[in-house]
Amino acid sequence: MLNLHHGGNDLLLDIELDFSANLNPLGMPQKVREAVIASVEECDKYPDPFCSKLRGKLSEKLSVSVDNIVCGNGADDLIYRIISAFRPKKALICVPTFTEYRKALSEYNCDVSEHLLTEENDFALNDTILDKLSGNDMLILASPNNPTGLIIEPELLAAIAERCSLEDVLFLCDESFIGFSSERERLSALNYLNENVIVLRSFTKLFAMAGLRLGYAVCGSSEIAEIISFTGQYWSVSVPAQAAGIAALDETDYIMSTTEYIKNERECLSGELESMGVKVFPSDTDFILFKASADLGKLLLERKILIRSCADYSGLDGSFFRSAVRTEFEDKQLLAAIRRILNG
Amino acid sequence: MLNLHHGGNDLLLDIELDFSANLNPLGMPQKVREAVIASVEECDKYPDPFCSKLRGKLSEKLSVSVDNIVCGNGADDLIYRIISAFRPKKALICVPTFTEYRKALSEYNCDVSEHLLTEENDFALNDTILDKLSGNDMLILASPNNPTGLIIEPELLAAIAERCSLEDVLFLCDESFIGFSSERERLSALNYLNENVIVLRSFTKLFAMAGLRLGYAVCGSSEIAEIISFTGQYWSVSVPAQAAGIAALDETDYIMSTTEYIKNERECLSGELESMGVKVFPSDTDFILFKASADLGKLLLERKILIRSCADYSGLDGSFFRSAVRTEFEDKQLLAAIRRILNG
Repeated sequence: MLNLHHGGNDLLLDIELDFSANLNPLGMPQKVREAVIASVEECDKYPDPFCSKLRGKLSEKLSVSVDNIVCGNGADDLIYRIISAFRPKKALICVPTFTEYRKALSEYNCDVSEHLLTEENDFALNDTILDKLSGNDMLILASPNNPTGLIIEPELLAAIAERCSLEDVLFLCDESFIGFSSERERLSALNYLNENVIVLRSFTKLFAMAGLRLGYAVCGSSEIAEIISFTGQYWSVSVPAQAAGIAALDETDYIMSTTEYIKNERECLSGELESMGVKVFPSDTDFILFKASADLGKLLLERKILIRSCADYSGLDGSFFRSAVRTEFEDKQLLAAIRRILNG
Repeated sequence: MLNLHHGGNDLLLDIELDFSANLNPLGMPQKVREAVIASVEECDKYPDPFCSKLRGKLSEKLSVSVDNIVCGNGADDLIYRIISAFRPKKALICVPTFTEYRKALSEYNCDVSEHLLTEENDFALNDTILDKLSGNDMLILASPNNPTGLIIEPELLAAIAERCSLEDVLFLCDESFIGFSSERERLSALNYLNENVIVLRSFTKLFAMAGLRLGYAVCGSSEIAEIISFTGQYWSVSVPAQAAGIAALDETDYIMSTTEYIKNERECLSGELESMGVKVFPSDTDFILFKASADLGKLLLERKILIRSCADYSGLDGSFFRSAVRTEFEDKQLLAAIRRILNG
């Protein structure tokens, strides 16, 4: 059971620097940590299965009815529960993208089609997707996409949401990484919610609380939210995760610092890599996709540095790598190591 | 979304005493609490998706190979993942029992048959179940059963495990409440593991850590365990839950105190109820099933005391109630309230 199919699981590797997991390099906010510790006194009871307080606060922050929000044990839990609830027979995904969509759809015997995002186009989504929607029960897109880092343009997002409504395609828009963008409000699919749209969000990455497992779905209708809520286990979200989420929603300064920090640090990291002749693709989030010699990953691992090889992503190959944007100190070590490798 | 379909969710009710959730009345062990607090420092990373340390310790304690053990976000998470992994077309359950089995099986379009446990027989399982196995893909039994509290006799359990192997029926034996029995080792289906048997266990109840979500499955083969492990989300068990589980496994004195306490307190509670003319059914765990006037639940609720009405259990009706065995202080208040109600 020990293959390494996601980033961040450096348990079996001797790693000193991990760029494979895309978590906020500023770390978990202190108030979130304190809320988790305080919540331990409540861990001897069952968690609120409805996450009422957390959903209430999300409802205020997002100006969406509380009845349209469902929380889960991480965004991944919700991916499985949504697919289990609606059992699409035919689904469309774009590739390259997060591998869990295909895995989840396949577990429910869904016929999955892939829309290829091309390197020539920097892996950007364009309006050719619109003509491929018909006949599908579900569309899953990530914005920003993983591992490319690109956000979908709002005009295109609006057109996709509208077409999905017309064609009755359930549109799951995974915004797990949108929190790292300073333009997240303007660029979110929340602006185009209709009864066929579900927006998926994660606390894991933005608040560096991956160990706690917390995500949420904002649905275009309360009926859809209720169906998801009643699919799968009853108490999916733990007491510490609910407490962490409630505290995290107050962290507006931390989010502002994060988006500013990530933008600057990402530009430095990309710029330096490009100055070494590495092809770096544009990103709107806390990781970058780049192209290099296929042995780069192995050579970095010899230096106890882990980046994410994209060899297992449909639409990419072993010459593509994803790296998190980390602290300036860590990023400099990564750049120095790559420089030494490229200079032989 | 606000119906109350399990015990323990007293969020919408004004409750002072909750006998609807069956958690250890001795509370969460101090060392478990400390382990959870210490684990907060690790919550900024992804949890170990394989729960390697926890599974290693379970393997030692249970003398079962680590490869046969899968951990989940509560036993409930594993019920859904096991059913999702094997997609039984026909399954057999006994009634009355935990309502989540039917819900989970139904979500996967399984045809569910019920074997009726009768009041005349104190809801005990007997060997008539053996002739009903043929033609089923799956059998789910709880031992101790919920809401009756009865453990399956070991000779019958052995016969069921053997017959399931012969007939190729996957046998899920839910032992979520077996930890409260001093005879848990002698009475466990772990003694009759074969390639068709999965034993499900929970940390939630025994260690009063329901807010953390942690359960595990011990499978008769490593192949079965691997299939379950790769079904559904990758990081299902949080960092605090893994830390709590690892600490809980050292709590041998606490478990011994618990089993002794529960046995004595359950006998008191049952004896006192019987002395009031209430029909109480035999139990081997931390709750009891009894029969009373159907308005008892409502009348107790007026006194801010919650017991679990069994009106929604197939095979029971509104005249059956389940009550947790709580502290002596709480149990005396329950008994006093029932006495006042029965005396009009």
